[in-house]
Amino acid sequence: MADLFVALIHCPVLDRNGRIVTSAITSLDIHDIARSSRTFGVRAFFVVHPIAAQREFAASLIEHWRIGYGRKFDGRRVEALDRVEIVAELDDAIASATRLAGARPLLVHTSARSEGGLDSNELRARLEAEEGPPLMAMLGTGFGMAPAMRERADLAMAPIRGVDNYNHLSVRAAASIILDRLRGR
Amino acid sequence: MADLFVALIHCPVLDRNGRIVTSAITSLDIHDIARSSRTFGVRAFFVVHPIAAQREFAASLIEHWRIGYGRKFDGRRVEALDRVEIVAELDDAIASATRLAGARPLLVHTSARSEGGLDSNELRARLEAEEGPPLMAMLGTGFGMAPAMRERADLAMAPIRGVDNYNHLSVRAAASIILDRLRGR
Repeated sequence: MADLFVALIHCPVLDRNGRIVTSAITSLDIHDIARSSRTFGVRAFFVVHPIAAQREFAASLIEHWRIGYGRKFDGRRVEALDRVEIVAELDDAIASATRLAGARPLLVHTSARSEGGLDSNELRARLEAEEGPPLMAMLGTGFGMAPAMRERADLAMAPIRGVDNYNHLSVRAAASIILDRLRGR
Repeated sequence: MADLFVALIHCPVLDRNGRIVTSAITSLDIHDIARSSRTFGVRAFFVVHPIAAQREFAASLIEHWRIGYGRKFDGRRVEALDRVEIVAELDDAIASATRLAGARPLLVHTSARSEGGLDSNELRARLEAEEGPPLMAMLGTGFGMAPAMRERADLAMAPIRGVDNYNHLSVRAAASIILDRLRGR
């Protein structure tokens, strides 16, 4: 089975008015997506943010749980956070994933709004194929990644569909559904 | 297609040491599960809490978005919150769901730790069956519902499985996966 990675993108993303912005790191995104990542066997979960002060904030959150009181308080949470890496750029995530997996991961764009893209079953089959390349699912914060990020991706995943055209899941919820579709039993 | 409901249970639930407690309402649980519920066509999402002050807190959160600034700020969020009902007891949720659906819903227990239970595909088939009864998925906060709540349920859903025995999803993540499995396309 090929390695699966997750990259949570904070820049460039869209705000609710479609402007290109840098979003702030949200502590619950890190906790929830780390726990979902651990549950579904993600090799590493990259929190990608270009601003050093934001990365330091994220690191301090994780250190709280990794050492001392937090570790004693909830070992399961620590186990999830051990797979989190905080990096400045998507290229840093790719480099780290390449070292871990021994091959460069294919980047998979995810979006609530894009047209087309691969069905989750097709992506799952690629992950399960013998000697398939590792995959890295890119998740956008805010109101989704700016269009330029799609151009960075090697593949795109079709949007998650509910019962009608409403699709306004939190990134935490979308991440868990995507990982369940790719790796759940 | 039969109606689907969600009930988020705060009492009695377990804490990390297995003690039976009442958990506090978390604003992000309401927002995330409301958005997932709207996406997957849940008829109503019940936030169940026995303490009046907690219910008032939840109501104030929702009112912030339903009226005035919040409504203008993000209409999609309002549309999700319109399906939230705050009630004191599970029986209140059942009574309200029965009025909405025209039939009493079967209660479906969900848990990360229980043995057995129906596969999500089987529950999905029941929802899609002609003239099947409505279903209400019970979700536990804290470290899951106390055992007594399983006795209230008509059916149980098998735990979500990842790649090994680690299963420590947030209730927000678990809710979204369960709804995707029951109603996603």
